Amino acid sequence: MSDPAPVVDPSPAPAAPSGPRPKVTNRGRTAVAVASSNSESTEVPEFEPFVAPGPRGFPPLTDYLDIVAVDMMSQSDGVNKQQHRTMFYNSNYLIVRRGQEFHVKLTFNRPYNPKEDKFALEFVIGANPDYSKGTYIPVFPNKERQSRWAGRIADNSNNDVTVGITPLANCIVGKYHMYVAVMTRFGIRRTRKDPVRDLYILFNPWSPADDVFLDDEPERQECVMNEMGIIYHGAYDDVAERQWNYGQFNYGVLDACLYIMDRSEMPITNRGDPIKVTRKASAMINSRDDDGVLVGNWSGDYTYGVAPTSWTGSTEILLTYASSRMPVSYAQCWVYAAVFNTFLRCLGIPSRVVTNYYSAHDNDGNLKTDIILDENGKIDRSRTRDSIWNYHCWNECYMTRPDLPFGFGGWQVVDATPQETSDGMYRCGPASVQAIKHGEMCYPFDAAFVFAEVNSDVVFYSRGKDGAMQPVRVNQTHVGRMVLTKAPGATTRRDITSQYKFPEGTSEERTVLEKAEGFGCHREKSRPPEADVDLVLPTLEVPVGQDFELSLEFVNRSDQRRVVEAYISGNVVFYTGVTSAEFMLRDPTVTMKPNETVKETVVVESKKYMKHLVEQANLHFIITGKVKETGQIVTAMKVVALHNPKLSVKVSGVNRVSEEMMATVEFTNPFSFALADVYIRMEGPGVMMPTYKYYSLIPNGSSLTWNETFVPQRAGATRVFATLDCPALRQVQGEVSLTIKP
Amino acid sequence: MSDPAPVVDPSPAPAAPSGPRPKVTNRGRTAVAVASSNSESTEVPEFEPFVAPGPRGFPPLTDYLDIVAVDMMSQSDGVNKQQHRTMFYNSNYLIVRRGQEFHVKLTFNRPYNPKEDKFALEFVIGANPDYSKGTYIPVFPNKERQSRWAGRIADNSNNDVTVGITPLANCIVGKYHMYVAVMTRFGIRRTRKDPVRDLYILFNPWSPADDVFLDDEPERQECVMNEMGIIYHGAYDDVAERQWNYGQFNYGVLDACLYIMDRSEMPITNRGDPIKVTRKASAMINSRDDDGVLVGNWSGDYTYGVAPTSWTGSTEILLTYASSRMPVSYAQCWVYAAVFNTFLRCLGIPSRVVTNYYSAHDNDGNLKTDIILDENGKIDRSRTRDSIWNYHCWNECYMTRPDLPFGFGGWQVVDATPQETSDGMYRCGPASVQAIKHGEMCYPFDAAFVFAEVNSDVVFYSRGKDGAMQPVRVNQTHVGRMVLTKAPGATTRRDITSQYKFPEGTSEERTVLEKAEGFGCHREKSRPPEADVDLVLPTLEVPVGQDFELSLEFVNRSDQRRVVEAYISGNVVFYTGVTSAEFMLRDPTVTMKPNETVKETVVVESKKYMKHLVEQANLHFIITGKVKETGQIVTAMKVVALHNPKLSVKVSGVNRVSEEMMATVEFTNPFSFALADVYIRMEGPGVMMPTYKYYSLIPNGSSLTWNETFVPQRAGATRVFATLDCPALRQVQGEVSLTIKP
Repeated sequence: MSDPAPVVDPSPAPAAPSGPRPKVTNRGRTAVAVASSNSESTEVPEFEPFVAPGPRGFPPLTDYLDIVAVDMMSQSDGVNKQQHRTMFYNSNYLIVRRGQEFHVKLTFNRPYNPKEDKFALEFVIGANPDYSKGTYIPVFPNKERQSRWAGRIADNSNNDVTVGITPLANCIVGKYHMYVAVMTRFGIRRTRKDPVRDLYILFNPWSPADDVFLDDEPERQECVMNEMGIIYHGAYDDVAERQWNYGQFNYGVLDACLYIMDRSEMPITNRGDPIKVTRKASAMINSRDDDGVLVGNWSGDYTYGVAPTSWTGSTEILLTYASSRMPVSYAQCWVYAAVFNTFLRCLGIPSRVVTNYYSAHDNDGNLKTDIILDENGKIDRSRTRDSIWNYHCWNECYMTRPDLPFGFGGWQVVDATPQETSDGMYRCGPASVQAIKHGEMCYPFDAAFVFAEVNSDVVFYSRGKDGAMQPVRVNQTHVGRMVLTKAPGATTRRDITSQYKFPEGTSEERTVLEKAEGFGCHREKSRPPEADVDLVLPTLEVPVGQDFELSLEFVNRSDQRRVVEAYISGNVVFYTGVTSAEFMLRDPTVTMKPNETVKETVVVESKKYMKHLVEQANLHFIITGKVKETGQIVTAMKVVALHNPKLSVKVSGVNRVSEEMMATVEFTNPFSFALADVYIRMEGPGVMMPTYKYYSLIPNGSSLTWNETFVPQRAGATRVFATLDCPALRQVQGEVSLTIKP
Repeated sequence: MSDPAPVVDPSPAPAAPSGPRPKVTNRGRTAVAVASSNSESTEVPEFEPFVAPGPRGFPPLTDYLDIVAVDMMSQSDGVNKQQHRTMFYNSNYLIVRRGQEFHVKLTFNRPYNPKEDKFALEFVIGANPDYSKGTYIPVFPNKERQSRWAGRIADNSNNDVTVGITPLANCIVGKYHMYVAVMTRFGIRRTRKDPVRDLYILFNPWSPADDVFLDDEPERQECVMNEMGIIYHGAYDDVAERQWNYGQFNYGVLDACLYIMDRSEMPITNRGDPIKVTRKASAMINSRDDDGVLVGNWSGDYTYGVAPTSWTGSTEILLTYASSRMPVSYAQCWVYAAVFNTFLRCLGIPSRVVTNYYSAHDNDGNLKTDIILDENGKIDRSRTRDSIWNYHCWNECYMTRPDLPFGFGGWQVVDATPQETSDGMYRCGPASVQAIKHGEMCYPFDAAFVFAEVNSDVVFYSRGKDGAMQPVRVNQTHVGRMVLTKAPGATTRRDITSQYKFPEGTSEERTVLEKAEGFGCHREKSRPPEADVDLVLPTLEVPVGQDFELSLEFVNRSDQRRVVEAYISGNVVFYTGVTSAEFMLRDPTVTMKPNETVKETVVVESKKYMKHLVEQANLHFIITGKVKETGQIVTAMKVVALHNPKLSVKVSGVNRVSEEMMATVEFTNPFSFALADVYIRMEGPGVMMPTYKYYSLIPNGSSLTWNETFVPQRAGATRVFATLDCPALRQVQGEVSLTIKP
């Protein structure tokens, strides 16, 4: 039998996974293997006879309806992609969103007669398609016939019929194949399988019936359609920005996202549920357990991969993963969050990256982080185990939560950064932000863990000679100091701390913490008396490599004389709060008259800290001390994020789609030492794919200039940005904004 | 410095894991590696000076308290093990339960003076012990000193001091080391590390402050102390029993259970929380993901391991796993549940194995299981994908749930059988049985999945020629027909169905199902009209290899004549409901007068089914049909579990502890074919360790006799039981009860 449907669009399919991996036999365990790959499929017969043919076969059919052509109407400027807001995907395939009608055009060998002719469009996904599993969906465009997805004849003229199909708003998300099946007297004839009739169906935040419906157009534009991201880091009082190209519309990214689910062997039938998709992805974005996308590395040694600070966007990572089928090296929290964000936006789940300053970790979801002091009030490093990250990035995604009682839908925390100390938790979320705010930690998934990240207390213990421990100070405001995300449609930041917690000191806050304890979270309950001496630290912005002054204020709030024996410890720390080296230790004795404030100034010399610096150039000062008269303990902590030099990025040309332009990156080594093994990476959403250049040596004082031509693909405001990375200097960035005319 | 504590008990430690596996470096990620092995430890210094020694060292100490001997008081008949109910553990070590005082005796070089002498007992678990993590606990036996675990001088006479220590009721469960530390003027002197001062601390269902407190002595005796289990299988109307020796007190089993947690790299700090311990263990008892204890196999081919039906107890499995460090082959659901039960009882968490008859699986937690019929009412096997297991075993364990709102403590479902189709769910629970009964499926962990196992509807669809599907029958009572467990202190069964659901048809049941739908579970809502013809199947008990009659009653409840075109399909099925072969198909047409009952008898010949039989010898009859006059669909389903021949087990001798006795196993091959590759396994709690014998061939009609001597270790009622297993015949059992006198 010849192919009844000629090829309409000859564009080849993107690289499909090279053959399925061998599976364990399931004989006796399951009737049919569970379909868990979107790249596998089962051939559907071209002819299904209703009865066995007679001895001489079927009589010839002369009057039956035959299919001449099928047009998926997949042009970027066509009605489908425009209405479904999928026009930016760099793909020749039809891409639509569920719960919303799309159209395909069929051309028959003769005019279609709705009264007599019967045909169906059959949508099929994965192996062993099955009606009751939602993996085989026949759509009948007649009014009389019920079909799971609504179908209708939108237009019927000459031999052409345009059919409107509305996939259910909770249908499986992924790549389908469409067959056209015509009923004849003797059986069903269908089109042969051909990738041109493949189509992608995505989540639809614009459809009220979809679980990811988000009724706010600026938010949707930001959290689904925007490729250009800003991820915050640094310190809460000296916020730094990282540019990121999520690249969710770039060629191959959508296929890479589907491959991630295939690689996890996630059953096809679960792929319409945003709760299951996001939970699975939180496990798959990190490589722990499951050979997922990104290998974590916090060691400072990135010899066998790309330094986390060097990436400029998600595209390179996802395409490398999909083609190599091996985890990509290396990531830290913002890389996990950024790639996860691409995955979510690409599939149509509204999402954003958030940054929590002073994030409590490694305390296994309990509400205290312990710092141990010796009897003199000096920090005892060998016994202080918990860490507070200077900042931590995770994702929020937007969805209803039908699995929870009413009121916990909306933004949900998901986190793909593997949490080492939590009970094998290499996945996290979705956890309702509302549940976190209200201390309703009994609801899945992992709300208690996120609650602790923003609400832990820092407890200072004094350890006696004989090993006895005494809590001496509880700091309730340090952790979860600020939660930031990028504002929709702007390049400014938005403080969303109040979505995670009630203001410090309010009765609501107290109620929530008590509720959390009711759910088994352990807090330090003793409240050692507050010291009557305060320690105030300044806010500082310091360029890397410079000496600076740290001026501490000792404030005596009592009516008596006070003497403090203080320890000022200066440390180089990783952004995870882990100390790399202590480069400075002073132990001044400060004497204050009643109600007096005394300033103690410490000069921090660059030659002391420079040789110890680790990648993100963070200094951590911990000042502890004991008031001689009262034995009270005073403490203060501060992170100083040193400012790196900037890259200069400029563009020249006519700023018009398809016109060649030039980007110029310039950098001068300002240090007294040479920089070796330098990578510069550059990209720009809609204008430039990721590209990089290698410099083996940049001598001290010398400059480099890199000119790169590019051709804008899309009109609109965008940016071109670059990073410079080498073992001796990381996290150097630069960017330029530009607007492309159509 | 010489060892201040002479060795008191020279018994060697059980084999410790042969060196830790290499770990990923955590530099920059965590301050200190997370302790996740109970077999690793950090050496604690023998002397900790308070100040640096002077130029000539410390002056000699003459009057200080020195430790001559430490007695852990670990005899089985001693006060510690008797009071802590750990006397049955076959171990020389001290084993106690938390939240309850135990005693150790110290002998000093001179009388102890409470006013002047200071000493502490230090308990340490895992590497990097840390006070604030609860892995380093100093206990001061003075009243004035606070210590986390209460300590007191219970007796002080001559040079001997007996110290009473009460571990916190929520302390970490596992193997600790105890040091004795004496304060001298210049520093702390402590005992050298020696395994004789190791001790195990377990969960304590007898302590009201422990999360696993169970206030019912018969239940505690059954669910913690009983080694002898009965696990139900077969069919709900023809229940069969499997004997099982949990063996939680056998030599090496406790160490194997701790090794399981070490192997999972579960942080030591989480090991006091029964929620985390049981959830982790539900993942580790199966080998999926994590190289856990047991490899699942439902294929019928067990060439490279032991057939699941062949095991007689958990001891052999756990000791093999702990010594080989490789997953053990093979398991099906009751093996997972039985070994999990051993783990739980061994650690002191009350637990029991339950059996659910007609357990819905592979429907991903949804509330319907689909069976597809063709237009004539005949089952369409190629399109019927879901399976209903004839039975499924899981565990219940008893604990409070501080992580949930009040009211969901008590029995919790945990399930170690890997669920293939659920989203990567190779762990399940703990899920509150109360929450399942009341449809509160929003509470962790996996309540929705268990709810579906007992509450799914069976939906029959009729599939039209053109692929359209129509629900024609909904059976709401088939799934979760009965839930059984062994009664405490008896060998009878206990029906606990009412703990999982309200009676069918009550308003409570309806409310619960509606609530479940509110949490996003999908049900079939259409209610096709009930047919006015009923189909009634008989209850049958059939020995394997015999012909039998299946007599069906067609009951016409209408006042009109009815003709049913019926399909009677006889199938050999695995216990998972998966069909291996259809051995019989009849399609009688049955005519009934108004209100008449017509009997249709079908002879089932053994020669038809014998050649297809799979291990558990289950036949599944599905009768479907269409009423000619009304088009209504009638259905009935029935599992017939064929009865295997029994093994004869007898014992002879004097039934007294330490007196040699003899067990005799006899078997006659009743079949017309020879049995090849036969293993017989035998064991008996407290009297006989697992043992087996191999017979290469048992010709048809011939008999075997195996005599095995054994020496009872313990007084009390017990059983000796055996299984016979070969590829052609599985699940043959026999047992004998006996009472051993002291």
